[in-house]
Amino acid sequence: MKNNILNKCKKIKIVLTDVDGVLTDGGMYYTDKGDIIKKFFVRDGMGVTLLRKKNIPTIIVTKEKTKIVREWAKRMKIEKVFGGVIQKELILDKIYEKYNVTPSQIAYIGDDVNDVELLKKVGLSLAPLDCVNEVKKEVDYICKRNSGQGAFRELADMIVNVK
Amino acid sequence: MKNNILNKCKKIKIVLTDVDGVLTDGGMYYTDKGDIIKKFFVRDGMGVTLLRKKNIPTIIVTKEKTKIVREWAKRMKIEKVFGGVIQKELILDKIYEKYNVTPSQIAYIGDDVNDVELLKKVGLSLAPLDCVNEVKKEVDYICKRNSGQGAFRELADMIVNVK
Amino acid sequence: MKNNILNKCKKIKIVLTDVDGVLTDGGMYYTDKGDIIKKFFVRDGMGVTLLRKKNIPTIIVTKEKTKIVREWAKRMKIEKVFGGVIQKELILDKIYEKYNVTPSQIAYIGDDVNDVELLKKVGLSLAPLDCVNEVKKEVDYICKRNSGQGAFRELADMIVNVK
Amino acid sequence: MKNNILNKCKKIKIVLTDVDGVLTDGGMYYTDKGDIIKKFFVRDGMGVTLLRKKNIPTIIVTKEKTKIVREWAKRMKIEKVFGGVIQKELILDKIYEKYNVTPSQIAYIGDDVNDVELLKKVGLSLAPLDCVNEVKKEVDYICKRNSGQGAFRELADMIVNVK
Repeated sequence: MKNNILNKCKKIKIVLTDVDGVLTDGGMYYTDKGDIIKKFFVRDGMGVTLLRKKNIPTIIVTKEKTKIVREWAKRMKIEKVFGGVIQKELILDKIYEKYNVTPSQIAYIGDDVNDVELLKKVGLSLAPLDCVNEVKKEVDYICKRNSGQGAFRELADMIVNVK
Repeated sequence: MKNNILNKCKKIKIVLTDVDGVLTDGGMYYTDKGDIIKKFFVRDGMGVTLLRKKNIPTIIVTKEKTKIVREWAKRMKIEKVFGGVIQKELILDKIYEKYNVTPSQIAYIGDDVNDVELLKKVGLSLAPLDCVNEVKKEVDYICKRNSGQGAFRELADMIVNVK
Repeated sequence: MKNNILNKCKKIKIVLTDVDGVLTDGGMYYTDKGDIIKKFFVRDGMGVTLLRKKNIPTIIVTKEKTKIVREWAKRMKIEKVFGGVIQKELILDKIYEKYNVTPSQIAYIGDDVNDVELLKKVGLSLAPLDCVNEVKKEVDYICKRNSGQGAFRELADMIVNVK
Repeated sequence: MKNNILNKCKKIKIVLTDVDGVLTDGGMYYTDKGDIIKKFFVRDGMGVTLLRKKNIPTIIVTKEKTKIVREWAKRMKIEKVFGGVIQKELILDKIYEKYNVTPSQIAYIGDDVNDVELLKKVGLSLAPLDCVNEVKKEVDYICKRNSGQGAFRELADMIVNVK
């Protein structure tokens, strides 16, 4: 890892993450009742645990609004879920206030065009390997792993390893 | 992208798409109640949104007839679903009439032998990378991505980028 | 394709197929009610249809016994399902009798050790690319595609193309 | 396979295995009711059967506590399920006692940091190809296949082939 990224990792006190296309492989399992199943990844869940053991909370920021995410978040002891968020960058003010952090202390991992503005504003920005090109251009680090297959864990390990 | 394709993209006013094997990876999740789950892809859904913002509606043309597709279509604000369609090329007359478009203003993406006749008749024809050989031979453009993993988004981005 | 295989394909009048690990990718989706979902592949289903249009019925031979398979078979207009079959080669006598065929007129595709004896006894034996080594050694043709991702369709196309 | 591994395989009388990320691809299928579906692999199930035919029981050791695992275990005639296990290495004493085996007669396959201590203590330690780096460093053998796609079967075949 470049020194630049290493230094950014050292400063991180809080991790924000998208859900669909980051914690999942982007699969939206539909029945006639709508979007009812999401497939998370056990080794990413362990990433949340490893961060928490270093006192770094994980916070979810997603444009979707489903009970599924709240259920996964509860089991993973996720600090907070921001659901139904259209302009993701607007949640930053709440984060600064509530967690008493500055932009350089925040990491965010996202995969699509609606993540770009938030990715630009945080101290450490990452994306899964299979993100869209518009995101690839804007992030500090592109993970070696795809969404839903360890991209989040890679972020977690990067930060945990320098703490 | 070749100039030829670029020029075809510029003319597109409406996008038609197959479902199974295009918007999904072809997976038919069966229980003893039949075909009850389909796995869509979040970044393809964003493709529908990006097209709509450019006033280009997306229309579904599928041989299957399931509530699942109608449910996904509703959430994605899909313009119209043609379900249970055996000879797909026959829906074109309805499309010309209702949307006041000519063949060169229509794009279609399909993956299997029952898509060939419709693919031949539209202005811009595409297929996911993992389509069958009979389709590969007939389309203007073979996507770099597989079905259910961004092939539709690739189509959407190609059109949106020249509008 | 080798001439040898081509000649074998020409003789085929009936196709037998395993389910798990051939028509599916081997995934057994369990809930606390047991094995309740199987993921079939739309382009394999089309293979069943293409064979039927050439008057070649498809017959399922599986060690599992689930309603799911019967449901898929019904929708795909599968000729017959042999479920709960432990020694698969023993069904051949029933097949000879009922369909008035000889061994050289039967094709079978299987992926695991319990398929070997039946594979050895039919005129054309195939396996998905991801089958176990014991099967690889015994079959006439190893498909270029994996189980649940077009291996069966490859078999169907091979036969349909010489009829 | 190296002689070293071959000799270790010959001694094995009991096989322990993790579930998520070993018998499954790590996918945690969530609905609003929680973790409700797990996807097992038919060729891994056959591995359990092949071991049992050689009188080698398979035992599950997992940190999760779900009815799903118990249901799969029942169908696969798994000897015993240890669920909700936080410090996996602590179950060894129970195993020694109940099955009258020594460490060198036990194999274990795991994929993540919470498996490391148990992996270090058994006679033959393995991991799926896609395990985390901390595990890769500690095991006797890294499977050629990923979790949920035949890693367990590879272990089973290795042992069965020398018995």
